[in-house]
This record gives sequence, structure tokens and C-alpha cells, in this order.
Amino acid sequence: MTSVDLNADMGESFGPWKMGDDASLLDIITSANIACGFHAGDPDVMASTMALAARNGVGIGAHPGFGDLQGFGRRRMVLPQDSLRNLVRYQLGAARGMAQALGTQVRHLKLHGALSNMACTDYDMARACYEAALEVDPDIIIMVLAATEMERVVRDLGCRWVGEIFADRAYNDDGTLVDRSLPGAVIHDPELAGPRILEMVREGAIITESGKRIETSIDTICLHGDTPTAVELARSVRGCLTDGGVEVTMFAAPGS
Amino acid sequence: MTSVDLNADMGESFGPWKMGDDASLLDIITSANIACGFHAGDPDVMASTMALAARNGVGIGAHPGFGDLQGFGRRRMVLPQDSLRNLVRYQLGAARGMAQALGTQVRHLKLHGALSNMACTDYDMARACYEAALEVDPDIIIMVLAATEMERVVRDLGCRWVGEIFADRAYNDDGTLVDRSLPGAVIHDPELAGPRILEMVREGAIITESGKRIETSIDTICLHGDTPTAVELARSVRGCLTDGGVEVTMFAAPGS
Amino acid sequence: MTSVDLNADMGESFGPWKMGDDASLLDIITSANIACGFHAGDPDVMASTMALAARNGVGIGAHPGFGDLQGFGRRRMVLPQDSLRNLVRYQLGAARGMAQALGTQVRHLKLHGALSNMACTDYDMARACYEAALEVDPDIIIMVLAATEMERVVRDLGCRWVGEIFADRAYNDDGTLVDRSLPGAVIHDPELAGPRILEMVREGAIITESGKRIETSIDTICLHGDTPTAVELARSVRGCLTDGGVEVTMFAAPGS
Amino acid sequence: MTSVDLNADMGESFGPWKMGDDASLLDIITSANIACGFHAGDPDVMASTMALAARNGVGIGAHPGFGDLQGFGRRRMVLPQDSLRNLVRYQLGAARGMAQALGTQVRHLKLHGALSNMACTDYDMARACYEAALEVDPDIIIMVLAATEMERVVRDLGCRWVGEIFADRAYNDDGTLVDRSLPGAVIHDPELAGPRILEMVREGAIITESGKRIETSIDTICLHGDTPTAVELARSVRGCLTDGGVEVTMFAAPGS
Repeated sequence: MTSVDLNADMGESFGPWKMGDDASLLDIITSANIACGFHAGDPDVMASTMALAARNGVGIGAHPGFGDLQGFGRRRMVLPQDSLRNLVRYQLGAARGMAQALGTQVRHLKLHGALSNMACTDYDMARACYEAALEVDPDIIIMVLAATEMERVVRDLGCRWVGEIFADRAYNDDGTLVDRSLPGAVIHDPELAGPRILEMVREGAIITESGKRIETSIDTICLHGDTPTAVELARSVRGCLTDGGVEVTMFAAPGS
Repeated sequence: MTSVDLNADMGESFGPWKMGDDASLLDIITSANIACGFHAGDPDVMASTMALAARNGVGIGAHPGFGDLQGFGRRRMVLPQDSLRNLVRYQLGAARGMAQALGTQVRHLKLHGALSNMACTDYDMARACYEAALEVDPDIIIMVLAATEMERVVRDLGCRWVGEIFADRAYNDDGTLVDRSLPGAVIHDPELAGPRILEMVREGAIITESGKRIETSIDTICLHGDTPTAVELARSVRGCLTDGGVEVTMFAAPGS
Repeated sequence: MTSVDLNADMGESFGPWKMGDDASLLDIITSANIACGFHAGDPDVMASTMALAARNGVGIGAHPGFGDLQGFGRRRMVLPQDSLRNLVRYQLGAARGMAQALGTQVRHLKLHGALSNMACTDYDMARACYEAALEVDPDIIIMVLAATEMERVVRDLGCRWVGEIFADRAYNDDGTLVDRSLPGAVIHDPELAGPRILEMVREGAIITESGKRIETSIDTICLHGDTPTAVELARSVRGCLTDGGVEVTMFAAPGS
Repeated sequence: MTSVDLNADMGESFGPWKMGDDASLLDIITSANIACGFHAGDPDVMASTMALAARNGVGIGAHPGFGDLQGFGRRRMVLPQDSLRNLVRYQLGAARGMAQALGTQVRHLKLHGALSNMACTDYDMARACYEAALEVDPDIIIMVLAATEMERVVRDLGCRWVGEIFADRAYNDDGTLVDRSLPGAVIHDPELAGPRILEMVREGAIITESGKRIETSIDTICLHGDTPTAVELARSVRGCLTDGGVEVTMFAAPGS
């Protein structure tokens, strides 16, 4: 039986400010990417989010980003490679410490925002970040955007990894995402998103806008939960997968 | 043979700003308390400081403080107990991640600045911080100010701990430090500091200004290195101890 | 005809995080206390909030707080007097710069959170903050909590000022607020809040829980807008005042 | 008689961390670019630096930068134009508030670090920043790097401005700086720097490495003071200019 994981970003509140509907998402997803205090999240938010995820049997991931709170880690910053390494080591370490204190553990790592966008197309940058994570925990599972430079890096490193695709984004024929400014780039309609993802998972391939198949490793689907519509779409994708005979379950630990 | 450890705060630079003479101190001390990025230090500074300490065979400690960079963690802040716990978990986790990545490890934990000053006289606060540290690492050695509420806490917790006294501060008869505003409170003269510390270590007791003995566990001496004089005083204390037949060595791991 | 101003805190979003319903409140209030980037607000949020307030004919105030984003300026910090002065100068200056750029101006200043709570009972602290504000702008109107140390300070300084009371808080006989942990301390019922405030404004006195009158200067009523209920209560208070023949209007500039 | 201004960055300490030798530089320079709390400086540092500059009769400038303390504003960040505007408005406003409180005033504005580097070659970015500054204070004097996009902008804006060249950097034939990685790019020798600058000031032209003349407006020379050598070079440049008959004086306010 085919199975797939569903992941979403969580723990993106900060101090007095709330973001996202983590409680609703935790009924839908199987892996949570938890902000580590640099672009969002603070030690209190991390603790409560991890506790909630653990209680729901959802896998915990560290989600490091640039140290840019005002910009939510979405503004590109040019850092030396060593600083990138230390940025990842520090945030992953903090997440592991918090998880350990709560009696749970960090299973995976996924880069956030501009750090992820840049690493997608920059082999050296992705490699620096992933090597740093593996130095902290050689067993950590790296979550990469399928069919990008990230995937090339984890294959070369020979580490444990999983590939993800987006539930709500259209793909170009070269495997990149359709630019957000173009019509159809973001899929808002739950009726559309579910069947589309079911087909990709079954075929083990990204299906582009033109209908082309790009075979890849689809281990997890990235969902969003920052709007009511997003939660509805997430629920619909999960329903479609289950109805279509795909098991929705936390990704296995490849290589273990 | 009597032995004692010498500790100092390190890694207190931040971004472009340098602080302290870490390289000189590393020839003198046996344990380093390394800032964790909240009151000082950043991931890059932590990495280079830990690497340097490890290369010098100096024990590495996490030195968490309040998240107040401008105030260097020296301004008192009133935080809920849960926030204190998460503050310590996060910073200790970050330090451990960094150490792990560099092939070394965090042996001890010492609270910084106002966090330490407040915990000295607040049993519940000290307990919250130390419990949080032990949840992250049950084997961590807690460094406490001898004969304070901190010591009461670690005795009650039954964890591994070491007691410290200050090389350059005079003590009142109740074991507290003489207020900095009073004459003689801070000992700047290397000729005075060395023999005084040697006597305390030999007797296993704090010797107060009035000459009273307070028996306590003197496992480590706190040195400073932020001024040329401080480095000279540190060197003198080490010389006096060695000449007096006291072995200067990283504290053993009690309870292990 | 008796008149009174209605004020509320605004511009408390930060980066990607939204807080409060500023747009709804702007239909109700006549003066806005706008966060200055230290406890909340960032330059972008300040600019859009000021522009919105100006468009609605609502008076703009600077609302400086402690530099503690995670704690939203609600955690007490102990700062030297000079640092308090510079904290206020900096934030008020930033607010004035922003207002100037937008073609509007800062009319008043109100302290936020723990800075306000501490200054309420600490004459020297309130005086340091208000003197600093007046050095930046000798014409600024200081908004003080009526019948507190703040009021004593502005009377001694001889500056322009207005006194405020809370729409939703009960008062003790000594003019202090009933502790939030006690029943009846916070008034959630719009039916209760409106008539109570109308009576106080008409009588020019705080009416305490026991029915005692404390004569004071009631120039403005502090409203909240962080919950739907709060907005409803704010609307109800305004309605009651208007129906009761009290004009709701931006406070005049006393002393000018 | 030809005259020229000497400027340097100052007030770059932060909290407990010191940077630069502001006191020595104030004997040499005539205009100080004072950090505004985003990349360096804090309200206390700003206040003491401005007070010191005013006491020395040195002109005060606001020196805004990116909000990146760890990177000292030297890491490139991509911000929307509106955020750039608000960044400048806020920091200039804060500087003006502080100056006003101290009985002095902000005369000029100079962009810092990566913000400056990017604006040098990006007309729209420089224009957004300068327009924002002029909205806060229409009389502010903009300090631009001579013969760059910055100069094009201020000429188009028709505002008050001055052009600067570097005392210690070699120039390419297109007016750009020789890359720091190339030999001879940075001039460390005080014997070389002084005569070279004297010649440029006398000729009213940048003299490139190849000897080419680029006529431009040389109103001020940028000096550094972060090393003992830098202070010595600064002193030597001033001496050469004075000996060569050039008056060293705060730039006049063109257009006023």
C-alpha cells in the first residue's frame, strides 16, 4: 500500500502574537516543522508547540530560518558559509534541547523561507546547511524539495532524507514552481488540490501544468494552515488521499 | 593532593564586537562558561570559542542569561517560571548542538548575570533553572555559588554539581558578597588575591572579611579576564595555588 | 458642554504578526497611542497605523515601552535613569520622524505596559520619562493615569497634560486599580461600563467600588480593542457618553 | 581658500561592547556619522556620542543601516521600497529626537554598510532612502559617495548634498572602488594617503589608480578610526591638508 506523510509549518507565533491554527492542523498532518526562534517562535512557543505535536503523535521537525524576525525569515540575506553552518547548528541544537526536556525528539529538519528558497537553487548553500545538521545529529532526516539542488545534495551526502511537493502550487516543466504572480500558480480550490495530489502520489511523479511527468520521490506533501481556506484545503487533500487508498502516515525513517 | 578548578566567562563577543581576552585566559583556566546567544555570543562566536576551548583542553560550560543584549543580561527581568525553564532549555540545547557539531561536549552549566544574582537568593527560581537543565541533560554538572540558595537546590535535586567562590570579591559573615560600593569589596591586587584563595581552598572554607570561616565545597574559583589587570590577577591566583601544592585541574565529575 | 476623549493602544502588530482591530477602533476613539518599535510595532506598522489614524482624524500619540519584544513590554525591567530618558527620547523621536514624513504630527505621549505600571507608583521614574519627552518636544501633551504619581509629576513640571481613567477596570478607595485576580476587577459587560463611565465623566471624579468619589481630571477614557467584546464595549461606552450629552472629541491642548 | 570636511563613523558601540576610538577621532574630524540603533548604537550610546560631538564642535549626522546587529548592517538584505523608506524615516527621527533632547541638531545623513553599498549602484534604492530622509527634514544635507548613483539621485532631487571620497581606498577608472581583495586596494600607509588626498582636493577630482582624473564634488573625506593605524592615518591626512593650504572645516550648507 502506498503511503505518504503530510507536513506543515507550526509554532510560528512569537511572544504575544499568534499565527496559524496549529491545533486544527495537528488533526490533519503527520509531521510538523517547528520554528526555532530566529524567524518566528520563541522558547515558550517552541515548548508548547512540541508538547502539542507529541501529544497528537505528530513527528517533530526543526525548521531553522534566518535571524530576521521582522521579515519572518523571508528576506534574502547573504551569509558566509560558516555562519550558515552555525545558524543551523544553533537552531537544531535548541530544538533538540527543548524536545529532550519534553521527553520527545526531533526527527527531521526542513529549511525555512528565504533560506530554503536560496538553498533550492544553490548546491553549496544547501550542502553547508545539511552537513551542519548532520554534524549535530547524524540520524536526522532531511526534508528536501523534490527535484531541486537540495535533493542532489542529500543524495550526494548519503544521509536519511525525504522529498516533498506542495499541495497548493503548480509546477513548471523543469520542476520549478510556477511564479506566484502568474494565474494558476497557487491552487486555492480544495476540489482541485486533492485529486491532483492523489494522482502525483500514485504515479510517484510531479505532474506539471503542461501535463508532463517528472519522476521523483514523493514522501511528504507540504500543507499550509495560516488561513481557514488553507485548513479546509489541507483536510480535503487528506480526505482524497485516504479515499484513494493512500495511507497517510508519518514518513518512515529511510536508511535506518 | 588538594585540587581545584579555575573557571571564567568566555565567548562574550557579539557580531563585530569583541569582549575579553579569551586566548590569554585559556592558558590559565580549566573550565569556560560560554555565552549562549541571549545576553552575549552569537552562533559564530560560540563555535569559535568552543573550538578554542576544546583545543586547549578546557572544559566547556553553557552560560545562559536573560534575552537582553543591550543590558548584557545584567538587568533584572521578572519572568514566569515556565519561561525561565524554556529559556534554559533553549540555550543549553543550542550549546549542546554546537558542541556536538564540533566534536566536543558541554560538561557544565552556570547561570549568568542578573539570572544568577536572582537565583542566588531565590530557591524556586534556581530550582526551575536547574531542573530545566537536567531535563535536557541529566548528567550535566551544575556550577553554583557556594553557600547560597543555589547550593540548597542542587543538594535537594541530588544532581552532579560543583561549588564556586570568587577570586576577587570579599565576603560578609553570612556568606554573601560585600557590596561593590563598599571599600575592599573588589580585590584588584594580585598579591592579595592569590594567598587568600590558597588559604580558602586549603581550609575548604570561605574566609570572610572579619576572618570567620564558612565551611563549604570549593571546587572551582571564578576568575575574570575582561581587563589586563584581571588576566594578571588570574595568572597570580593560579601561580599561588600551584606553588602552594594545590593541583589546578578541571573539576572531576562528582556523582558519576 | 462636557467633553471627553477616548484613547486606545494601536499599531501593536509586528512584522508578519497582526494584533488588534485598529480599523474598527478608529471609528470609536479620538486619540491613538501608537507603539514605537520596542515592545511592538515596526517602522512599517508605525507608518501604516499613523496614516490610518490621520485619515480618520484621530490624534496620534507616541507609546514608548521597554525593549522587550517577546514580553510585549509587560515584563518589569530595572534600568538606570539615564537609560530610561534615552529610551523615551529615542522612541518619541522615531515616532515624530515618521509622523513628519507622513505629513502629520505626534500630539501626545503615553507610557506602555510595565514602564507605565512602574511609573505609576515611582515619582522619579515618571519624572525622568516625562522630562525626556519634553526635551524632545516641549509642547507634547503627556497622558497620565489620573490620581497617580504620574499626575503629581506633570503638575510639578507644569507641562501640558491630560488625565485618563479606564473604561473597564474597577477602582479601590485609594485610587489604585482593583487587582485583576479579584472578582469584578475587570468589567466585561458593555451594559455596565457605559453608564459607569458617563457618571464619572459628569461628576469629574473616579467612583470607586465602594462608591467613594475621588475628584480628578478626566480628560480621556482608555479603551481596549484586542477582542471582539472589547470593541463592543468601546462602542457602548461611546454611545452612552453621546446619549448622555457628553461630547466625544479629541482632548483640547491645555496650556496652549 | 579651498576647504574640505573630514567625516568618520562614530557611536558604533552597543550595550557593553565598545567599538572605535571616538574621543581621538573627534580631535581630527569635522563631521560625525552616528549609528542609529539598527546596525550599531543604542539610545545610550547615541546620547553620549552626540553629546561628545556637540562639545567638540563636530557636525552630527544620522547614519542609518539595516536592522542586522549581528552582521553590523554589512550583510545585504532585500527590502521592499516602502520598508526602506520607513527604515530611514524611523532612524533619522530617532536621531533627531535624541539631538533635540541634547540641545543640538542633526545636520546630515549618510547611509551605512550594505545599505550604502547597494544604494551606490541602485538609483531607485538611493532615491527611496533620500526622499524618506527629506520628508522628515527638508533641510537635511545628504552625504553621497561622489560619482555614483547616489550623486545622480541628489542632483535630480535638487536637495542639499555633499560628495565624499575615501582617504584610504584606491579607485578604478570608472569611479568605483578597487576591490578589497586586490593589492593596493586599501591604503594603510599614512605617508601615501595624505599627499594623495591633498592632490584630489586641490584638483577637485578623483585620481584613479591609473592616474586618470574624474572631476567631481569633493566636499568631505571619509576617515576610519577603528584601529590605531587608522587614527594615525586620519591625523596624517588632516596634517597634509592643512600644511597644503586646505582649510579643514565642517562642510557649508549648500543650497541654504
